[in-house]
Amino acid sequence: MTVRAYEAADLPAMIRIWNEIVDEGIAFPQEELLDEVSGAEFFAGQSYTGVAEEDGKILGLYILHPNNVGRCGHICNASYAVSAGERGRHIGELLVKDCLENAKRLGFRVLQFNAVVESNTHARHLYERLGFVQLGTIPEGFRMKDGHYENICPYYHEL
Amino acid sequence: MTVRAYEAADLPAMIRIWNEIVDEGIAFPQEELLDEVSGAEFFAGQSYTGVAEEDGKILGLYILHPNNVGRCGHICNASYAVSAGERGRHIGELLVKDCLENAKRLGFRVLQFNAVVESNTHARHLYERLGFVQLGTIPEGFRMKDGHYENICPYYHEL
Repeated sequence: MTVRAYEAADLPAMIRIWNEIVDEGIAFPQEELLDEVSGAEFFAGQSYTGVAEEDGKILGLYILHPNNVGRCGHICNASYAVSAGERGRHIGELLVKDCLENAKRLGFRVLQFNAVVESNTHARHLYERLGFVQLGTIPEGFRMKDGHYENICPYYHEL
Repeated sequence: MTVRAYEAADLPAMIRIWNEIVDEGIAFPQEELLDEVSGAEFFAGQSYTGVAEEDGKILGLYILHPNNVGRCGHICNASYAVSAGERGRHIGELLVKDCLENAKRLGFRVLQFNAVVESNTHARHLYERLGFVQLGTIPEGFRMKDGHYENICPYYHEL
């Protein structure tokens, strides 16, 4: 398995994987599904978009972009998505590690996550294992698909 | 002194006050100064923009907007600006209190500050006195005007 920059030919698989997470409604803030046009624009607009590929198949992806403007523009933010059928294979770990490397290469100094859902223990354990520091907890910061609210835990990692 | 929604006639004073803070380079992430056109657009694009007025003079202002999209869109973010010549008169406190009321009225559930500079003790004491909870500290999250980095302290307040 390799993690590399995405190419145009990867877009259909990337859009499908991204939309799986959006549709689950328990991890991404975004609620709008990407289509061929909005997806191409969305991934091209990132500071970096990486994909995990195995035997020509896209298994996951991540996006990386500034978390704020100007005097806080050296803080970046990222989102990770692994295809539902490929979870449990530590693909997320490869994506986060590659993301940390690329964020540093691009000159960012801090990687910050704004909205890790507190109950998403799998993601939180991964981030903590990779050295992310939790910045406390925001009560009911995430509206789940069924309408109830869950706490979110911001994290950061110096680069 | 009253705090009220801004009107078009307030814009020149608002742009001047906003630009004072941007030019100081120690509190707002933004580095670009507003002009007549970009200022009008910027303030009109907020969920709410309030001003503090006394005898027809604008002494300060605040902006309020969602801090994120979709499933985190019920978290809002705000910035406050008090005219350099009017500081020390507790105008900031009036602005933050009015902001909390308007944020709740607009249906937001949490007000979050992303980038309060750690050394800005005046602002931090004000926020803490008004019930904001600090979410830890992000090392060197703010690039000051002279180029050195200072820590930032995210805060939140339930509404």
